[in-house]
Amino acid sequence: MKRTQFANWPCSIARTVDLLGDWWTPLVLREAFYGTKRFDDFQQVLGIGRNILTQRLNRLVEEDIFEKVPYQERPVRHEYVLTPKGRELFPVLAAINSWGDRWLAGDAGVPVVLHHRSCAHETSAAVVCSHCREPLELDDVQARLGPGFPDRHRPAALATGRFTGS
Amino acid sequence: MKRTQFANWPCSIARTVDLLGDWWTPLVLREAFYGTKRFDDFQQVLGIGRNILTQRLNRLVEEDIFEKVPYQERPVRHEYVLTPKGRELFPVLAAINSWGDRWLAGDAGVPVVLHHRSCAHETSAAVVCSHCREPLELDDVQARLGPGFPDRHRPAALATGRFTGS
Repeated sequence: MKRTQFANWPCSIARTVDLLGDWWTPLVLREAFYGTKRFDDFQQVLGIGRNILTQRLNRLVEEDIFEKVPYQERPVRHEYVLTPKGRELFPVLAAINSWGDRWLAGDAGVPVVLHHRSCAHETSAAVVCSHCREPLELDDVQARLGPGFPDRHRPAALATGRFTGS
Repeated sequence: MKRTQFANWPCSIARTVDLLGDWWTPLVLREAFYGTKRFDDFQQVLGIGRNILTQRLNRLVEEDIFEKVPYQERPVRHEYVLTPKGRELFPVLAAINSWGDRWLAGDAGVPVVLHHRSCAHETSAAVVCSHCREPLELDDVQARLGPGFPDRHRPAALATGRFTGS
C-alpha cells in the first residue's frame, strides 16, 4: 500500500512526521543518541531486518540527519554520524520519552532514567514557551497562518475556523 | 505486512511510537488540538479515508487519548474529546513542530505560527531539563536503567555500554 506523502503539506508536524513517522526510524535515532554508529550495531541492538535498516538509514542520510563517514579502508566501511539537524531531534525524542514515562510506564516504573550531567540530577523533558519559558499548554496556544502557508490554501484554511490570519 | 509491536519494549520512546507511529495519528491529534471533534470534520480537513480514520480514532479511544462523548440522540452521534492523557501530547507535537519549523520550512518561512496567549508573544517549543530548566542537549544527558527495565534484559543491556546501572 502506497502511503500518503506528507512532506509537502503546509504543516511542520506533517513534514516531520513524514520523516520520522515510521515505527523504526525513531528507534534508530534513539540508538544513535545512545552512541550507536555502525550498521551491525544498529541491527543487533534493535533486532531489525537488514533490508529495512538499510532503507531507513539511507533515507536519514538523504535527509541530512546522518552523515556517512568512512572509518575503515579495504574494505571501506562507514559509520552513521549525527549531523546538527539530527542532533536537534534529541529534544523531540526526549519529549516523546517523557510522555511515555508518565502515561505508559505503569506500576513497574520507568524503564530508563535520564541523568542531566550539567545539573547532576535526574531529568525529564519539559516543553516550555521559547519566549517566557513557562510550560507550553494547549489552551494557551493559538495557531495563526504563517508566511510559508500557501496563498491558494488560505481561504479554505481560514474558513475552517482553526486559524486566525497572520 | 505485519509490523513489529513495540508496546511492550522496555523503552518509553518505543511504547509511545507504537501509539503515535503511524503517519496519520499525529495529524489526527494536531486537528484535535486545533479544536476538531467530529468524525466528518477530521475526515474533511485531513482528506483521510473513512476506514483508516475509524481505525485510528478507535485505537486512540482504546488508549484513553480520546473519550467518545455523545452530542446528539436519535441517531446517536459522538464527539472525540481529548482526555488529560491526550492533552498532554500537545507539548510533544509542539516539539515536533518546532523542529520542522527550524529544519524543513525552507525559504518560504514557517507555514503556521504559534501564539502564546499567556505571554502575548509568538512562541515555539523549547525542551528543557525538568530540574534546572536549561535546554536539554544530547551531550549533557546520560541514560541509566530504571526500575521498570526487566531484570532478565539487564546484563545484555549493560554489556552494550549504552547504559550505566541505576
